[in-house]
Amino acid sequence: MNAQELWKRYQRTLCQVASVGVSLDVSRMAFDDADLERMKPALDRAFAAMDELEKGAIANPDENRMVGHYWLRAPELAPTSDLTDEIARTLAAAVDFAAQVHSGAIKPQRKPRFTRMLSIGIGGSALGPMFVADALGGPGIDKLQPHFIDNTDPDGIAREVARLGANLDETLVVVMSKSGGTPETRNGMLVIAEAYRAAGLDFAKHAAAVTGDGSKLDQAAVKEGWLARFPMWDWVGGRTSETSAVGLVPGLLQGLDMTALLEGAADMDKATRAHDAAKNPAALLALMWFLATDGKGRKDMVVLPYKDRLLLFSRYLQQLVMESLGKRLDLDGNRVDQGISVYGNKGSTDQHAYVQQLRDGVNNFFLTFVRVLEDGGDGVEVEPGATPGDYLHGFLLGTREALFANDRQSVTITVTRVDARTVGALIALFERAVGLYASLVNVNAYHQPGVEAGKKAAAEVLAIQDKAASALSATPHTADQIAAAVGAPEAAEAVYLVLEHLAANGRARVTPGEHPGATTFQAP
Amino acid sequence: MNAQELWKRYQRTLCQVASVGVSLDVSRMAFDDADLERMKPALDRAFAAMDELEKGAIANPDENRMVGHYWLRAPELAPTSDLTDEIARTLAAAVDFAAQVHSGAIKPQRKPRFTRMLSIGIGGSALGPMFVADALGGPGIDKLQPHFIDNTDPDGIAREVARLGANLDETLVVVMSKSGGTPETRNGMLVIAEAYRAAGLDFAKHAAAVTGDGSKLDQAAVKEGWLARFPMWDWVGGRTSETSAVGLVPGLLQGLDMTALLEGAADMDKATRAHDAAKNPAALLALMWFLATDGKGRKDMVVLPYKDRLLLFSRYLQQLVMESLGKRLDLDGNRVDQGISVYGNKGSTDQHAYVQQLRDGVNNFFLTFVRVLEDGGDGVEVEPGATPGDYLHGFLLGTREALFANDRQSVTITVTRVDARTVGALIALFERAVGLYASLVNVNAYHQPGVEAGKKAAAEVLAIQDKAASALSATPHTADQIAAAVGAPEAAEAVYLVLEHLAANGRARVTPGEHPGATTFQAP
Repeated sequence: MNAQELWKRYQRTLCQVASVGVSLDVSRMAFDDADLERMKPALDRAFAAMDELEKGAIANPDENRMVGHYWLRAPELAPTSDLTDEIARTLAAAVDFAAQVHSGAIKPQRKPRFTRMLSIGIGGSALGPMFVADALGGPGIDKLQPHFIDNTDPDGIAREVARLGANLDETLVVVMSKSGGTPETRNGMLVIAEAYRAAGLDFAKHAAAVTGDGSKLDQAAVKEGWLARFPMWDWVGGRTSETSAVGLVPGLLQGLDMTALLEGAADMDKATRAHDAAKNPAALLALMWFLATDGKGRKDMVVLPYKDRLLLFSRYLQQLVMESLGKRLDLDGNRVDQGISVYGNKGSTDQHAYVQQLRDGVNNFFLTFVRVLEDGGDGVEVEPGATPGDYLHGFLLGTREALFANDRQSVTITVTRVDARTVGALIALFERAVGLYASLVNVNAYHQPGVEAGKKAAAEVLAIQDKAASALSATPHTADQIAAAVGAPEAAEAVYLVLEHLAANGRARVTPGEHPGATTFQAP
Repeated sequence: MNAQELWKRYQRTLCQVASVGVSLDVSRMAFDDADLERMKPALDRAFAAMDELEKGAIANPDENRMVGHYWLRAPELAPTSDLTDEIARTLAAAVDFAAQVHSGAIKPQRKPRFTRMLSIGIGGSALGPMFVADALGGPGIDKLQPHFIDNTDPDGIAREVARLGANLDETLVVVMSKSGGTPETRNGMLVIAEAYRAAGLDFAKHAAAVTGDGSKLDQAAVKEGWLARFPMWDWVGGRTSETSAVGLVPGLLQGLDMTALLEGAADMDKATRAHDAAKNPAALLALMWFLATDGKGRKDMVVLPYKDRLLLFSRYLQQLVMESLGKRLDLDGNRVDQGISVYGNKGSTDQHAYVQQLRDGVNNFFLTFVRVLEDGGDGVEVEPGATPGDYLHGFLLGTREALFANDRQSVTITVTRVDARTVGALIALFERAVGLYASLVNVNAYHQPGVEAGKKAAAEVLAIQDKAASALSATPHTADQIAAAVGAPEAAEAVYLVLEHLAANGRARVTPGEHPGATTFQAP
């Protein structure tokens, strides 16, 4: 196809959502009208399923749950007036809480104002807030400076505490966990609560919870008199929770325009309800994913926003896409091993890293460019007539062409600027695309059964650690001997590994042998 | 294979480098002794090629260059005494410069001390320094607080300037570019230099250069009297430059123990020169990559360090592996489209994101766990006998088992702790593994021909922009009309896209039409 034909194809296939200033260019993907025609029945079924989902069907059958994240930005669409009221009430409460924190009406124990926010959560309770905080915040914008703990790494937690330093006493902690039992989040909270106690402060006077009604965390927050509690609903999944309290509370505290984010998402939701793929960018995206990957994840999705603020967008999408689509069984119980792998950072930075492989190497991907029209910054020229933003834009277009010339496919999403409306629209666009794609490949996009296996195996490791540590004595023993002594001879490797870890932390003594089986352990 | 057999396999195949406290576990990879036997001739050729490379052979034939990053941590191995001296002299100069900056002997124009460092570079001149800064630095460690500009995004640059805020006058800028002509780096430098001028400061009194001898940047630094200049050599590639001045200068300025990092790399280099795969973790890694991906990149490499400080390690490896291996032609000129795709962030965080797909979904990857024995933090118990670090460790082992139970392969690299020695060793381990793997698949690991195509295409876009902008008048014209007017009718789409971008930044007026071809542009 020559440049003239590509330009015609570009014009014919461009899908624009004027209300939010977003457009989708699929001209550099390999498809023709016959592909779209062939996919139409499947897509119509996907639209029908999505309509049912929005009306309150049990769209997550394994967990017997409704899937309601679209109601969060259009509460009037919720299937009951109770839900409508609860959504509106939660938003109002979050707005009010943030306003009181900003005014100083709600203040820390010893200081006149909160100046920092520390969000403790993981997965769906971290990536959305982190992405939005970085996309929309910054010096001069942030009313509270955002900090995050998203892991159970003691060193990582200690480093975040060190970053807060003397400002701990003006830090508002938001703990986010649906069940309240997520170990990473609970551990982070316990260590941070201890840091407040060590500083002579009452943690409860610096804490808010976003959690399921009646969860352990909720009960603790009530009992200890935390500053505020906001709900997590079972009909909102973690990876689609940015427009729930999970995203709203930290965003509002930071001082971001979360109402505009909701509006942007609502406008994109309207556009992506159209039952005409040519006018529905989410449907068009889902079709492109299907055609590019054979509906079997045969190509990776590389996400490359050309804008520093969108660095975390690819990581956010990695979770949204892979956790939603990466499923062993389809809805009929057939083994399918589905999914689409997602990675990427930002352009043009990545052009100086792995884009070498994208252009020349294994052709196992399709690219998703995000093109931002407004440059920001001060528009200074670095060459006559050319700004740094012109270079950034030129690198995007140049890479798009260089890849296409080498038979590498790409879609380009153009947005006018990075603001709250746009970010809301981008989130909604991909949420819908993922939902429609899941229908095309017949999987439940709203559960995560595989996550349990790792948790269960981890619990077994901790149980083995407990037994092995108890079995340590002044006499050196090998892992095999200790495993046998605790009645778990099959767990010798696990015993070896947990004792190696305990020994490195002063909780066991190790005498290395010729090989791991000859290594001995004893009490510290 | 049952647990007992796996434990035996673990012991039999574990590869340990005691000098740096690093071990490699490949027991959860699918291979047997026959595979290793079969690969032996190819591996022997790889060892021989690596030996030649270290002796100064032209290992990068396309660019007619030696490949000398291993000499940087063992200067006595460099092929000439001039090179040996130059390497030692550069390290000494960097150490001395940092000491003078820290002591205040070298100080900013108006303030008694430098307190911030702003590194401007991209690709190989950014990812290594960023990874090391995050892995080893933090509050209480950093003598100069590190900041980075790694793109030509005007908004991103402005945000970094805002972060420096009133501290610009105590910020030391390090500009890193081999040619001095990398547009992203040059643009960043120009905008930052302007910020200094706007603050009434002499940029040269706050700037140091790391660049090729005699480059444009080098000449400017001499002419303007910058604080210091350090060399970039043509025999060190960007993605293997962390142990050159590119990594040493910012690391030393930050206050990191870069000498220990060099020692750790040197010790790993010694271990990975062994011509016995069972005792050489780099060779074993390369073999695993080959067997897992069929030597054709058929599986992605997911990198999952269970330690917050190592978050950027996967991104660093993404560049090192993909830019080195992602090649269209092999060394004999055959079309091969090689490479291995790399992605990942950190555990256990990612268990709450895409690990769902890894366990249950498309089986298109193998995992690389990084296990850190020492926990750090304060070791507080969150359950009787269990610390947050025990959970982190348990999640790693649990995920390893849950994946293996579902036929997903993994290697596990264990390190005693995250310190300068270990980080140096990890960098050296993967540099060597990449070099050996490149030999196994017969590609040049040390050039990046595909990067040029994108740059060239971008230059064409900027040229079109220049013409299109000049052709704007008070009369509205379509992109087709303007393209024809500037004698480039085939470039109508590019004209449309660059004018859409200019219009969004107040440098053109746009009147949207029904479709892009009907949209008109005129002078602002």
